[in-house]
Amino acid sequence: MQKRVRLIVAYDGTNYHGWQLQNNGITIESELNRCLTELLQEPIEVTGASRTDAGVHALGNVAVFDTQSRIPAEKISYALNMRLPEDIRIQKSEEIAPDWHPRYCDSRKTYEYRIYRGEFSLPTKRLYSLFTYHKPDVARMQEAAKYFVGEHDFKSFCQVGAQVKSTVRRVTEVKIYEEDADLVIRVTGEGFLYNMVRIMVGTLLEVGLGKREPWQIQEILAAKNREAAGPTAPAHGLTLIKYEFLQEKTGCLEK
Amino acid sequence: MQKRVRLIVAYDGTNYHGWQLQNNGITIESELNRCLTELLQEPIEVTGASRTDAGVHALGNVAVFDTQSRIPAEKISYALNMRLPEDIRIQKSEEIAPDWHPRYCDSRKTYEYRIYRGEFSLPTKRLYSLFTYHKPDVARMQEAAKYFVGEHDFKSFCQVGAQVKSTVRRVTEVKIYEEDADLVIRVTGEGFLYNMVRIMVGTLLEVGLGKREPWQIQEILAAKNREAAGPTAPAHGLTLIKYEFLQEKTGCLEK
Repeated sequence: MQKRVRLIVAYDGTNYHGWQLQNNGITIESELNRCLTELLQEPIEVTGASRTDAGVHALGNVAVFDTQSRIPAEKISYALNMRLPEDIRIQKSEEIAPDWHPRYCDSRKTYEYRIYRGEFSLPTKRLYSLFTYHKPDVARMQEAAKYFVGEHDFKSFCQVGAQVKSTVRRVTEVKIYEEDADLVIRVTGEGFLYNMVRIMVGTLLEVGLGKREPWQIQEILAAKNREAAGPTAPAHGLTLIKYEFLQEKTGCLEK
Repeated sequence: MQKRVRLIVAYDGTNYHGWQLQNNGITIESELNRCLTELLQEPIEVTGASRTDAGVHALGNVAVFDTQSRIPAEKISYALNMRLPEDIRIQKSEEIAPDWHPRYCDSRKTYEYRIYRGEFSLPTKRLYSLFTYHKPDVARMQEAAKYFVGEHDFKSFCQVGAQVKSTVRRVTEVKIYEEDADLVIRVTGEGFLYNMVRIMVGTLLEVGLGKREPWQIQEILAAKNREAAGPTAPAHGLTLIKYEFLQEKTGCLEK
């Protein structure tokens, strides 16, 4: 009896060439396929929810696969973690409807970008946050962030060359707060374009440093041109925190 | 004109054989000596405050050295950080009295031990905290921790074979608190024996898991025998947070 299994996948992206299979280089997807194929003794290819870039981390990315295995779905996490390298850890495994697909289900995901503001970088934070000795103005960034919330054409915040039918996306929340010397930017949305959060962060930092005014976010959105926005913030400060699926267990059809 | 320079040193201990010079393996001390010697064009040997073990991290270890260099002491941090590997970062450099010695000055230091309690380990926390799927009882640990505060003979909490004149030490505070899924143990004291904090943590965890009673810490201290205490907790959960020196700038004589 075939069943579909859903995995919640956490990883430290430092040593991977991102999520997606590549000809050169080890990826999260290639490690999952390799270890699942060994464990279940049948060829397994996972389908991921978010194809995170090289260097981006995750606490809760999502993948599904189909298997004939008689191992109970909820036990696969334990067995798979014994085989995976220590920088990838399944947080949960469970059976899901046979037509449930992580990219065709309505979902909301939350990313966190972390910035460490110090005079010098801190070695124990270097892999998971962007270091800056600048002191961006948090209130200006918070003001600018409001313009991102809602449904907008985010074409200016999408890497040139990304192939998508539409560049309209809905951002439901942008929270910016301080945690000791860290500045944390949490973005929740129903979908993101390629590099969208990192370009939002790069632009928000320019606002924080006085290079742009908060209200100019509106202008940048209206320009629908990548060159209107700020730089793409480095990958290692970004972590995919969680997915929330609106059809949690039932199937969802390809749209 | 010779001057003495004090460094505040932060590092990720993951890739080092501890602080102290060794015949085999790179250490924090060997990297500081190598980079300072290159930078200042004279042979430099630093003296460290705390010789942390392999795998232990630091936000604020302390080192001093003497130099003939005309580079202002407070600029050395910038120049040295350009040469050091990215997992070692000087947080501050400053001139200090010529007879100031980090191990002969009265000081208070604070260590933090971090435990991540989850069903599975979290890759982005794996280098800086101990993972456990157990759920130790925090209140029991807090009760046990009180017995450590004050001046005691900590012989039971010292690795066998450590060469010290006295095993009496003063612990001024032990704070145990929860931070989301992390359990944090902060120990402040005027001096620590070899592996003392790690053995305290290993013993506190046994109390938290019901293997020992809180009041038995008294018995363990009274035994003055390493075998009476619990296991040595792994190095990677431990970070040396800070030093406070009572004679901050003036000299302090060898005792």
